[in-house]
Amino acid sequence: MKQFTAALLGSTGAVGQRYVSMLNDHPFIRLEVLMGGKSAGKKYGEAARWLSPSEAPKDIARKQVLATRPENAEGCDLVFSALPSEAAARVEPNFAKAGFNVISEASAHRMEDYVPLVIPEVNPSHLPLIKNQRKRSGWKGSLVATPNCTVTGLAMVLKPLLDGFKLNKVVVTSMQAISGAGFPGVPSFLIMENVIPYIKNEEEKVADESRKILGVVGKNAIIPASFGLAISCNRVPVIDGHLETLYAEFPGEVTPSAVTKTLNHFMGAPQELRLPTAPKQPIMVHEGLDRPQPRLDRLAGSVPGMSVVVGRVRNGIDKNSIQLTLLSHNTIRGAAGTAILTAELMAARGYLGR
Amino acid sequence: MKQFTAALLGSTGAVGQRYVSMLNDHPFIRLEVLMGGKSAGKKYGEAARWLSPSEAPKDIARKQVLATRPENAEGCDLVFSALPSEAAARVEPNFAKAGFNVISEASAHRMEDYVPLVIPEVNPSHLPLIKNQRKRSGWKGSLVATPNCTVTGLAMVLKPLLDGFKLNKVVVTSMQAISGAGFPGVPSFLIMENVIPYIKNEEEKVADESRKILGVVGKNAIIPASFGLAISCNRVPVIDGHLETLYAEFPGEVTPSAVTKTLNHFMGAPQELRLPTAPKQPIMVHEGLDRPQPRLDRLAGSVPGMSVVVGRVRNGIDKNSIQLTLLSHNTIRGAAGTAILTAELMAARGYLGR
Amino acid sequence: MKQFTAALLGSTGAVGQRYVSMLNDHPFIRLEVLMGGKSAGKKYGEAARWLSPSEAPKDIARKQVLATRPENAEGCDLVFSALPSEAAARVEPNFAKAGFNVISEASAHRMEDYVPLVIPEVNPSHLPLIKNQRKRSGWKGSLVATPNCTVTGLAMVLKPLLDGFKLNKVVVTSMQAISGAGFPGVPSFLIMENVIPYIKNEEEKVADESRKILGVVGKNAIIPASFGLAISCNRVPVIDGHLETLYAEFPGEVTPSAVTKTLNHFMGAPQELRLPTAPKQPIMVHEGLDRPQPRLDRLAGSVPGMSVVVGRVRNGIDKNSIQLTLLSHNTIRGAAGTAILTAELMAARGYLGR
Amino acid sequence: MKQFTAALLGSTGAVGQRYVSMLNDHPFIRLEVLMGGKSAGKKYGEAARWLSPSEAPKDIARKQVLATRPENAEGCDLVFSALPSEAAARVEPNFAKAGFNVISEASAHRMEDYVPLVIPEVNPSHLPLIKNQRKRSGWKGSLVATPNCTVTGLAMVLKPLLDGFKLNKVVVTSMQAISGAGFPGVPSFLIMENVIPYIKNEEEKVADESRKILGVVGKNAIIPASFGLAISCNRVPVIDGHLETLYAEFPGEVTPSAVTKTLNHFMGAPQELRLPTAPKQPIMVHEGLDRPQPRLDRLAGSVPGMSVVVGRVRNGIDKNSIQLTLLSHNTIRGAAGTAILTAELMAARGYLGR
Repeated sequence: MKQFTAALLGSTGAVGQRYVSMLNDHPFIRLEVLMGGKSAGKKYGEAARWLSPSEAPKDIARKQVLATRPENAEGCDLVFSALPSEAAARVEPNFAKAGFNVISEASAHRMEDYVPLVIPEVNPSHLPLIKNQRKRSGWKGSLVATPNCTVTGLAMVLKPLLDGFKLNKVVVTSMQAISGAGFPGVPSFLIMENVIPYIKNEEEKVADESRKILGVVGKNAIIPASFGLAISCNRVPVIDGHLETLYAEFPGEVTPSAVTKTLNHFMGAPQELRLPTAPKQPIMVHEGLDRPQPRLDRLAGSVPGMSVVVGRVRNGIDKNSIQLTLLSHNTIRGAAGTAILTAELMAARGYLGR
Repeated sequence: MKQFTAALLGSTGAVGQRYVSMLNDHPFIRLEVLMGGKSAGKKYGEAARWLSPSEAPKDIARKQVLATRPENAEGCDLVFSALPSEAAARVEPNFAKAGFNVISEASAHRMEDYVPLVIPEVNPSHLPLIKNQRKRSGWKGSLVATPNCTVTGLAMVLKPLLDGFKLNKVVVTSMQAISGAGFPGVPSFLIMENVIPYIKNEEEKVADESRKILGVVGKNAIIPASFGLAISCNRVPVIDGHLETLYAEFPGEVTPSAVTKTLNHFMGAPQELRLPTAPKQPIMVHEGLDRPQPRLDRLAGSVPGMSVVVGRVRNGIDKNSIQLTLLSHNTIRGAAGTAILTAELMAARGYLGR
Repeated sequence: MKQFTAALLGSTGAVGQRYVSMLNDHPFIRLEVLMGGKSAGKKYGEAARWLSPSEAPKDIARKQVLATRPENAEGCDLVFSALPSEAAARVEPNFAKAGFNVISEASAHRMEDYVPLVIPEVNPSHLPLIKNQRKRSGWKGSLVATPNCTVTGLAMVLKPLLDGFKLNKVVVTSMQAISGAGFPGVPSFLIMENVIPYIKNEEEKVADESRKILGVVGKNAIIPASFGLAISCNRVPVIDGHLETLYAEFPGEVTPSAVTKTLNHFMGAPQELRLPTAPKQPIMVHEGLDRPQPRLDRLAGSVPGMSVVVGRVRNGIDKNSIQLTLLSHNTIRGAAGTAILTAELMAARGYLGR
Repeated sequence: MKQFTAALLGSTGAVGQRYVSMLNDHPFIRLEVLMGGKSAGKKYGEAARWLSPSEAPKDIARKQVLATRPENAEGCDLVFSALPSEAAARVEPNFAKAGFNVISEASAHRMEDYVPLVIPEVNPSHLPLIKNQRKRSGWKGSLVATPNCTVTGLAMVLKPLLDGFKLNKVVVTSMQAISGAGFPGVPSFLIMENVIPYIKNEEEKVADESRKILGVVGKNAIIPASFGLAISCNRVPVIDGHLETLYAEFPGEVTPSAVTKTLNHFMGAPQELRLPTAPKQPIMVHEGLDRPQPRLDRLAGSVPGMSVVVGRVRNGIDKNSIQLTLLSHNTIRGAAGTAILTAELMAARGYLGR
């Protein structure tokens, strides 16, 4: 199989570490270059305060972290960016201009007209927007964004609902894990034995991004989907795994069993292409009465953390509405995993060729 | 002022202890008789594993716990019941039959036609149902129920919304504290670093009880309010304080500022009567961007734990809908406090006379 | 390789579930019979409320739970007991009498003269006590105990210290995980945002058992080791992993580097015999300044959860004393793992032949 | 009574807020000036992210935060410093030089020969060191330090043990609350469902400071107490309240009952002088088998948070040693409370006169 080499921006942070773990032993993407800000010049093993139980892969730990400059990525086929939003806004276009295919997790460019915002199972059809992008920007490379961690699980569940039953409106409440705030992130003093009913800018992102992802490709931009969406975002004392309650209204009657079947059978391009990071079943409906639970279900599925787990599918106020609870792993499916899956999809579709 | 003496059923449990604390120094209700099951015969101080930081009042600690029998309550003007539901179903009617005015926190009788389900600020008009009750049951005493802990805060907020703006439908997600499950309650193994997206029978209770409380008195029963309600109940790792996100749709336009004003100005019979356990402001809208929070706001207000704290009032999907977050202390406003306030109201209205 | 079949008493509880997980895919022990009390007659998959993220192995889930009677274990080569102490006291001798080799995790028989209390790396030399046991009791089978979960990690660290440097006295403080209390175990109401500085009977067990394990085989019983030991046991809000601080005094000077080397090089019979559940390195000294930490290090080592992780080795009050912190996984190394390793050792040494 | 006015350095931080709360309604100390770094120029109510459930006193919230300069404290009788250590090292001497009596919580100057390190109940006799200090430094004002939060509870318990029974050595393990790390302090990602067995520089501070506090006044400096001390400091997921296990060896026999009596009867200068922040009983021995617990006992006593709660007094390895568990509120007794009590003592002894 054709091999691809990658550079990683923001490599030492919490999300950057997820990329390092997930790309270890990847069948055709090799993480070649690690970049960082203050940590540039140090060995990766010293620069990254390793946050997960398993240790950093030894060959990566020995690599030197390079300064975040396009010339340091020379020879790489793609560039993953785990940069925080401000840095991403400044830096990512330079890489795209210099000819790199950038896959970014930052919010900085997600809502730009010419930037595809992609979940491989949901809207692979948005990738061709890259052509417009190149034309408009004059970039030799490209910039593809992946969505906010709360959006990913939600949009994956909304996609088959929209396709199967249409969708009038949804009301969502999220209970989000602390790892979504990065590191150092949420002070323990604020979240211990508590819930914080607000996450800055999060609700706007969820509304805008999910409509874009579920929209259709127009002439020069995505025409967003038109269903109504209301959301309340909350931070809860959980380490990993965003839980969301979803109430959805449809133009006609829907039964919980039809919804369950539709969700369980949902498949996308990654499954058809058997991409290495694609879970066999992107959405798994759990039959347990009190599931999904973050601690028990966040790593469910054939590729741990890549499946969205749904439970408690039931009617809502009446027969035209349903309620359910969904869980997705915020730093895997909601971040590094979706970005890597996007890279795999782009490779399969010929977007990464040089 | 006229003095009343009270008996307490289920006195040694977690909620029973709240009654003991709150009735300590009460201006006109004196807790005279403590009843229990297995603990009957022991001193209260030995029988009750005291769960809060402050200690049990000394005179109460010295009292002997009596067996749960009507004859042991002789001379009491009212009987508070903090019994679990099954025991309540069996035992409470015996006390009402024997002539006692029972105020019960159990779910056992809440939905019976002839039982008023009361939040003093919301539906004092339901109390006269007691006459029907006596006629139908032949009881010399009475049985008044207080609602489920998740309902109380919700119904208090819905009341002024319904009166002020009408109400088509509401979608609610609760994040409930572990103390709502009593003691020993939720095993730490299940809830630590986790959220449990299900609480047995809770969602049905919220839907049924809130419509009854907000209903109007019909000939022989309450005619429930007719708005639509969908709810998802979750358990979170918080000790006290139920947080709820509320999405509400109205027949016409509503502005966040009008809702805020309406909620802040809401007053009920307890405030007019200046009852001792009535908070000056039953609903307090917090202006903080990230409030209410259980750990910071659960004891807010002039009577700690008796005010519902609301925050994040904003429009929902469109101008006909709003969203907000509310918090109420589940073992004070959601249990002992509302029961005691009900007793005070009944005293003021002449229901406790012998 | 010779295959052995096993029965499991107390199979549906929290620790029972660990056996089921660890024996899945075992190279030569096959879990054949699952026993239970109230759950007898049900399918295992329904009877056991599965507590870990991974699911119960399917073939096990389909098995019927049998009543806890020796005749139901017929044909098994060994019997693992994850029974609580009282049940163990009653039941285990019946199995031993009936000819089964019982490996018990319960405290019931640990301190009996004729019962070897074994950690395979520490005191395999105690196993021959089984001969005395059979003579004295007339049992055809045998009963071997494994130690309390707090003792296991401690005794493993004390063994090389005792052999290498002698040992005058040790002062230990434990910070124990909630899973050590089984299920439902510790109510969340008691342990959330708290530490409980007492665990019933635990301190006595640690003192007695560690001296027995480190003792030498006498004529009819073990002559316990004679060092002084003081311990304070605490429960902390951690799911798995007992952390212990150790202060130790020696007759002569000891250096942290000598202690580190001695601990890192410690090997026992399981390592020599390359038993399948034996970690390559029973004690791993972590170089991190702030390690070991329960959440990060409890699954360290070549067999996850079977290595004791030590850190912060430093001098104590003077050059004759040292201090260190140790961590062991309480339901793996401290329970199921040590029992399975004991079975492997007994198999290798011919104690399980029929 | 003579009134004193105070300035507060580091007023907006977590500990600064404790001073504000505790000095509200103080009978003779009025908090007049609030100083800050980045927050200078703002209203206190806006500058301080208020961390406790109760709100900031209104008159304080309205005050403007001033830059940290001696001239801004003009007219104040004393200066409390809640500055972090580096800032304290630079700034505090300037205030002392300018004629202010500074009471500092920072570690910066604690171990200086000429700085009294004071717990009012333990070593009021060290205050006269101020004379040496003035002579040596030429300051018109003075600088008195209060100890590290882990030391305070420990030294208070060691004082009566040392006086009553002598003391050969102590072995201590602390389980410290997150509030001890200030704000933002410990990231939730690190401490949730975890224990961190290391706190930077903490163990050295405990050893050095407790020996100084328990030492005797020599010619130009304190001659430290000579008992041996080994300590392991751990961070646990608790909000407030440092718990410590203590093992102590004595030259002769000691009984738990004698120790209990000695601790319960311990009194110091603040109790004799009936200072307003002095708890009636500085050390309270709790009789509960599983006490003290941080969440239940941290606010025990007549002045909430000012009493040290001790429990589980028992013999250690032999009759010459004892073990016990102690709890002290780290931001009250371990910080603001002890500083305010020190100010009260200095006022009573005439050190604050101008």
